[in-house]
Amino acid sequence: MTSKRIADSTVRRLSLYLRFLEEFENAGLTTVSSEELAARGGTTSAQVRKDLSFFGSFGKRGLGYQVAELTQRMRRILGLERDWRVVIVGIGKIGSALAQYEGFQQRGFRVVGLYDSDPAKIGRDVYGLEVRPLEALAEENRERPVDIAVIAVPASAAQRVVDQVVAAGITGIMSFAPIQLHVPADVTLNTVNMAMELERLSFALSNRE
Amino acid sequence: MTSKRIADSTVRRLSLYLRFLEEFENAGLTTVSSEELAARGGTTSAQVRKDLSFFGSFGKRGLGYQVAELTQRMRRILGLERDWRVVIVGIGKIGSALAQYEGFQQRGFRVVGLYDSDPAKIGRDVYGLEVRPLEALAEENRERPVDIAVIAVPASAAQRVVDQVVAAGITGIMSFAPIQLHVPADVTLNTVNMAMELERLSFALSNRE
Repeated sequence: MTSKRIADSTVRRLSLYLRFLEEFENAGLTTVSSEELAARGGTTSAQVRKDLSFFGSFGKRGLGYQVAELTQRMRRILGLERDWRVVIVGIGKIGSALAQYEGFQQRGFRVVGLYDSDPAKIGRDVYGLEVRPLEALAEENRERPVDIAVIAVPASAAQRVVDQVVAAGITGIMSFAPIQLHVPADVTLNTVNMAMELERLSFALSNRE
Repeated sequence: MTSKRIADSTVRRLSLYLRFLEEFENAGLTTVSSEELAARGGTTSAQVRKDLSFFGSFGKRGLGYQVAELTQRMRRILGLERDWRVVIVGIGKIGSALAQYEGFQQRGFRVVGLYDSDPAKIGRDVYGLEVRPLEALAEENRERPVDIAVIAVPASAAQRVVDQVVAAGITGIMSFAPIQLHVPADVTLNTVNMAMELERLSFALSNRE
């Protein structure tokens, strides 16, 4: 199985299913049907079965899914059965907010380093981590490899910073900069564009009854 | 046309196409083929044609699309030919970062108000706007209606705050709280979950060659 064949929208739904499964587990349910998962997620049971079918066979016809087993397999599929070492590059408002974001820690995304190029920020303590100079990232990544760099710098600096992060040997990047970035083929890049998130809303508001 | 029939992933691609079209326009191109749009966006020309076909006929077979015309129609489809009055509720780190996010302004999302429940924050000046008490939102929304409320409060407070925003009469909501929220059927809610964004990355990193 390669990630290429799985659409982004499928992965987003898997993340949602995992959250619903955890709710069901917390509520003490042991089995769940594709209809129940679909109802919780605003989709169809056919969609749920199709999404899960990419990853092997789950559940028994007429008996539904075992909540605990499916939860565990969702975690494994999403790469959440391990910890991920995350650094944040750019310790402005967004970078600082992400450094303390409780949702990351819950999922095993451990923020282990903060980096910036601004001498005024280097050396500061942010939630127990010292902001380090970006130039130190390559050597520190060799000593204790980093899995994911989160880029929270202004658009004008983003490509230069991403080039430095790639040169440091990091191959997983999440960017918050509102600009298209270029990385080598062996680097995986995801972009979170806040304006595009608002456009999903303006689209929905413009087209509702 | 109702928004119900258009998948979220389609809307995300339209937002991307719009960005590419603007790049082409800035580069002085007057026509573009579905192949060129697809190559820019890492998708297929069949997907581009299918996405656009939801919204009527565009382009001429063999001649490609008129960049200026398609750009304008994308803006109209996405609801970007008008300004949107946006308020931010919860003026912590994320809320403050969003208040100055340059990408919003560029797209006509005007941040016109900041609200919080914390007496220590009320009255503060944040990038030229005074933080107002959340209790004032209902009356201020009657005087000058708000289109979208962005919710940037902790998960534990989010449902209560959303209920207040809905009671104030606002029907477009974007939430950053890492929790499932409930709103009436006439309210449109989008959630941005940072941990789910990282999960797209951990999935891709776990499943790459």
